[in-house]
Amino acid sequence: MDELTSRVRAFAEERDWQQFHTPKNLAMALAGEVGELIAEFQWLTPEQAAVVMSEPDAGSRVKAEMGDVMIYLARLADVLGVDLIEAALTKLEDSARRYPVDQARGSAVKR
Amino acid sequence: MDELTSRVRAFAEERDWQQFHTPKNLAMALAGEVGELIAEFQWLTPEQAAVVMSEPDAGSRVKAEMGDVMIYLARLADVLGVDLIEAALTKLEDSARRYPVDQARGSAVKR
Amino acid sequence: MDELTSRVRAFAEERDWQQFHTPKNLAMALAGEVGELIAEFQWLTPEQAAVVMSEPDAGSRVKAEMGDVMIYLARLADVLGVDLIEAALTKLEDSARRYPVDQARGSAVKR
Amino acid sequence: MDELTSRVRAFAEERDWQQFHTPKNLAMALAGEVGELIAEFQWLTPEQAAVVMSEPDAGSRVKAEMGDVMIYLARLADVLGVDLIEAALTKLEDSARRYPVDQARGSAVKR
Repeated sequence: MDELTSRVRAFAEERDWQQFHTPKNLAMALAGEVGELIAEFQWLTPEQAAVVMSEPDAGSRVKAEMGDVMIYLARLADVLGVDLIEAALTKLEDSARRYPVDQARGSAVKR
Repeated sequence: MDELTSRVRAFAEERDWQQFHTPKNLAMALAGEVGELIAEFQWLTPEQAAVVMSEPDAGSRVKAEMGDVMIYLARLADVLGVDLIEAALTKLEDSARRYPVDQARGSAVKR
Repeated sequence: MDELTSRVRAFAEERDWQQFHTPKNLAMALAGEVGELIAEFQWLTPEQAAVVMSEPDAGSRVKAEMGDVMIYLARLADVLGVDLIEAALTKLEDSARRYPVDQARGSAVKR
Repeated sequence: MDELTSRVRAFAEERDWQQFHTPKNLAMALAGEVGELIAEFQWLTPEQAAVVMSEPDAGSRVKAEMGDVMIYLARLADVLGVDLIEAALTKLEDSARRYPVDQARGSAVKR
């Protein structure tokens, strides 16, 4: 992850793209890429979606879109000074408290 | 990242949530969390957004939303068998070819 | 639709919110509301989603989120000077040409 | 709006696409189209975004993407039996109560 962050930063700096990489713009770019990712799944049945990675064309597109989402998420985190993995682990601990195993088992109810 | 993936997987398995964690559902959850993240920025001026992490309340919310996005992205990648960092680095190499430094410098034109 | 557009505009002007209602901000707000809408569906099975409007709580939330999406879409269209219905009908005619009935019947393949 | 709803419905039925037009799938398609719309704005400065409709190419793309968003929103509403305009007007009345003019004037604070 650190290497990815560094390489995305270098990619942007070499192209003088820091001017475009404001938090608002990067949040928009992230939403745009997630839109492209979700579009890969929209007309698939649940069964087709489960095996999408074994379809060469669709699988490649899904992987590429996930790569794009990861790139913009890493770039936004870098610009904001957020440690993504730490943020995710902290959030996971919060969720563990909010959804105790014995109450949450098998239930999709939000708390 | 590997630790995060393992912990998110354990979190889901302990709660018997694999049944909900289909690729379509996780892509939807990812889009929902990105929506919450973008909502943190929508009414901020570019100047306010640039310093959002120094505002205790807004900064905490942004970090938590980024954590949620990372969690669902890691979970989707795990379910699909995609190596997120590798997918991002591959995509970055593609982009480096599509946007050569000398042509792309300072330009936001899409190719 | 015209009445909605007028009422959303009056709502914004009475609160001096035109300063926040820039195209970028409204596009972000639209994405945020669509994120809330999609979150209502993410953990539902296809069968549960098909009857969501007959569940009082979930049905109310879905209707309210669709109202929010419509509000921001109408507001963005108003700020940009786009006639939404005309834009949709024009796009539908384009799609009719791109997806001729005899070729597209029963197929989700994108063109 | 009623005419749009009817024409989108006819478009889907002629192509036997009702099978794809489940609430979950349509919510995903809506999110995908909003992603394309937001992508049109992501690298624009606020000043460029304010005049995007006077740029022939970008303006056409924005209008087309807004048309797509409207189409899927109308289709989702039709499938769910939601009256979009009524849902939006109801939500606007709720917001008027939540954001009284004298308290909300000039403020982007969420309630």
